[in-house]
Amino acid sequence: MTKIILAGGFGKLGEAIQNGLKADYEIVGILSGHQHNSDIPVWTSLEDIDVSADIWLDVSTPATVYENAQYAIAHNMALVIGATGLSDAQVTHLKASATNGILIVPNFSLSAVLLMQFSKTAAQYFPDVEIVEAHNPKKVDSPSGTAKQTARMIASSRQKAPAQTSVGEARGERVDDVPVHAMRLPGYIAQQTVYFGGIDEQLTLSQSTTSRAAFVPGVIMSLNAVTKLDHLVIGLDQLLN
Amino acid sequence: MTKIILAGGFGKLGEAIQNGLKADYEIVGILSGHQHNSDIPVWTSLEDIDVSADIWLDVSTPATVYENAQYAIAHNMALVIGATGLSDAQVTHLKASATNGILIVPNFSLSAVLLMQFSKTAAQYFPDVEIVEAHNPKKVDSPSGTAKQTARMIASSRQKAPAQTSVGEARGERVDDVPVHAMRLPGYIAQQTVYFGGIDEQLTLSQSTTSRAAFVPGVIMSLNAVTKLDHLVIGLDQLLN
Amino acid sequence: MTKIILAGGFGKLGEAIQNGLKADYEIVGILSGHQHNSDIPVWTSLEDIDVSADIWLDVSTPATVYENAQYAIAHNMALVIGATGLSDAQVTHLKASATNGILIVPNFSLSAVLLMQFSKTAAQYFPDVEIVEAHNPKKVDSPSGTAKQTARMIASSRQKAPAQTSVGEARGERVDDVPVHAMRLPGYIAQQTVYFGGIDEQLTLSQSTTSRAAFVPGVIMSLNAVTKLDHLVIGLDQLLN
Amino acid sequence: MTKIILAGGFGKLGEAIQNGLKADYEIVGILSGHQHNSDIPVWTSLEDIDVSADIWLDVSTPATVYENAQYAIAHNMALVIGATGLSDAQVTHLKASATNGILIVPNFSLSAVLLMQFSKTAAQYFPDVEIVEAHNPKKVDSPSGTAKQTARMIASSRQKAPAQTSVGEARGERVDDVPVHAMRLPGYIAQQTVYFGGIDEQLTLSQSTTSRAAFVPGVIMSLNAVTKLDHLVIGLDQLLN
Repeated sequence: MTKIILAGGFGKLGEAIQNGLKADYEIVGILSGHQHNSDIPVWTSLEDIDVSADIWLDVSTPATVYENAQYAIAHNMALVIGATGLSDAQVTHLKASATNGILIVPNFSLSAVLLMQFSKTAAQYFPDVEIVEAHNPKKVDSPSGTAKQTARMIASSRQKAPAQTSVGEARGERVDDVPVHAMRLPGYIAQQTVYFGGIDEQLTLSQSTTSRAAFVPGVIMSLNAVTKLDHLVIGLDQLLN
Repeated sequence: MTKIILAGGFGKLGEAIQNGLKADYEIVGILSGHQHNSDIPVWTSLEDIDVSADIWLDVSTPATVYENAQYAIAHNMALVIGATGLSDAQVTHLKASATNGILIVPNFSLSAVLLMQFSKTAAQYFPDVEIVEAHNPKKVDSPSGTAKQTARMIASSRQKAPAQTSVGEARGERVDDVPVHAMRLPGYIAQQTVYFGGIDEQLTLSQSTTSRAAFVPGVIMSLNAVTKLDHLVIGLDQLLN
Repeated sequence: MTKIILAGGFGKLGEAIQNGLKADYEIVGILSGHQHNSDIPVWTSLEDIDVSADIWLDVSTPATVYENAQYAIAHNMALVIGATGLSDAQVTHLKASATNGILIVPNFSLSAVLLMQFSKTAAQYFPDVEIVEAHNPKKVDSPSGTAKQTARMIASSRQKAPAQTSVGEARGERVDDVPVHAMRLPGYIAQQTVYFGGIDEQLTLSQSTTSRAAFVPGVIMSLNAVTKLDHLVIGLDQLLN
Repeated sequence: MTKIILAGGFGKLGEAIQNGLKADYEIVGILSGHQHNSDIPVWTSLEDIDVSADIWLDVSTPATVYENAQYAIAHNMALVIGATGLSDAQVTHLKASATNGILIVPNFSLSAVLLMQFSKTAAQYFPDVEIVEAHNPKKVDSPSGTAKQTARMIASSRQKAPAQTSVGEARGERVDDVPVHAMRLPGYIAQQTVYFGGIDEQLTLSQSTTSRAAFVPGVIMSLNAVTKLDHLVIGLDQLLN
């Protein structure tokens, strides 16, 4: 069984990962900011770690991810990083240090990654497109990072300018000339829909996730892939066939 | 067969009405700004009209609708008005003059009228709601009149304030504190969706029309109702059971 | 504070009710098939109950609901019944015994109840309609009870026969001549959509619930209403304005 | 300007093509079963054709397409075939005869072709999937050819069996173990939606076309591509990047 050290194992994603991996992987220890009751060894600092593993899986915080990554490299582990917060310079440095595979995954949701890929492809043929995302009112920023990234990917691939369209407050925020609309409603967790319009034709792509359990298949895909890599790769989309 | 005089019979809606009514009503003449080839008598001014009818159906222009309506009342016809542009004072005056039924119908789309009614009811229970409408890029104003009216009806019936939500360009135009989002895309004619969110619960109401033929059932409902009225009524919703 | 006795308080719905009511109601005791650790007194048989309450809220099982209801009536409580399994004869008997309000609620979901009401109204104008429901693969029966009830309400109110349409395995199960389609997919909890089609016009009504917390607002509406009743009423729809 | 001979130019698709190509291509003649008034020369048999062209575009009938194709090859034209009805043997023979490009296009709708491609990709990651298509009641067969082909492409690429799910009339027709549901409603022209479900995750892909004008961009893409080919290719998907 592949051995995993899990950094950030008691956050919401960490807990979902603990549940999701237990059948097929051996989590040999968890690095966490605080001590927790657990069947698995829990360390609160890198110095306490007393075992080795095949893969370091990091879903910790911006404050800790870089130091963790250096530790994992120094101890000859492959590395899957789901935590945010690495600077460009840090990524460059990790890339130069990589001897085993390093996989940085900004978004573990397979449906979100596929949505972005499909949107990028469709934009080649349908330059007219708008995005509507919906999240819970607790999400304070808008539009979502996924919606913005989708807009950028659309903009990067479309080959014609979209039709000139009306302006006004109701017309959304333009992200690289893609109107993006954000709804904030109870009953919604995380959803986005990309609407393409052509001549007498509509193409609509939508995805939603309702808990962090949705990210576990993407984590597993990452763990399976990283041991076959020998360099740094960014994005789950790089693993798609 | 009920006899109809049709004012504005060669606009897009007028043509759809001509097609839609021919089986069940007798259109005895058409008033139009210009002469047209037609099997039905066409008049270009009120003075030319030389027949009578049971109902005057007016889908003409803001410039002509009021004078037309006065003519119809003077000639003892019931009156269905789909044309826009009557001032409040003109409506008040028509109301005072009415001896037969007068029905003013801002929107002949049954699906749109039902959507507004249902949204008004749902808002009593789900104060958190947003509207997304989609039209062709040729539509220059945003949001649509239907979306704005729907927002106002929602606001008039909700009994609790919606949750405070994030602001920003992507968050739409607030119409009576209902966020309204407008998409302008080829392939879309006229569509609107009302999203209600509750605790772990979603209620979504949507309607679209793809041609003015969609308005004919509402026109027929209006013609059937107006002969049973003896006063002025506004809105197809007043005819719903 | 209104005092409640909760029967079936440790099922999934019971737990959601415990959480949802704690701010505004006083749950003075819970009747359950088994003893549970709880801050609230837990009884495992009717004889053990040693307090009184304003309302008996029953979300227990078909095996216990009728005896519970008789107990509540005998002890002068109003009664909200969410448990299934009452026979017609039992309902008739409860109706005859009622001195306080009795509210039997087959479905506490406000969005589901509104969907059914709206569908019933829309069917008067749009006789052509199909239903698609989606649930988790664990749900073994199809179509869902809500979908079937919606179909029956549609059939009861439509005033014209629907267009004759093609047959075949893909065309769904006809429930009172309404085609009903059932999807069974992971990632779906409970969702149904009612598609109405008219001439160049679409009206689409949809609702979903993702946890039993969605039922709490309907429970609260029921508790508020039942104390103002003096007879037996069936269905949350009877409480809508 | 590229010269086109259009076979079947007065069917619905033929008319849409005449309108759609006039700006960018020169249609030098139209082959049709019947004489029509037209600014462009119209021939009613192959022997009457007295001009040459770069591309033969065939949207005629199963009865004529094969003979037409042989004529085009014999006269050194590239060939785009949108007509149905070629047998496997005929395709094989055309393939062997090809000196210029031959492009057989079962579906000119870009949104439909993209939907199928995306569905094939997504099925690798989400084996649990159902299809709902909606067409006008006039369509007598069900499910649609596009839905069936989409199901087959999904089945060909999924790598795990879907979850065992309930059976029953409401559960649709199984096409290669993909449940397919067909709605037949006025107001719908041609629409299909593919629902993928994962753990707490949904991915939904949908497309619709509302007139044959929607097929013109696919026709143009085919005309642009075929002159760069030197052999027989089947499917617009082969031209996607």
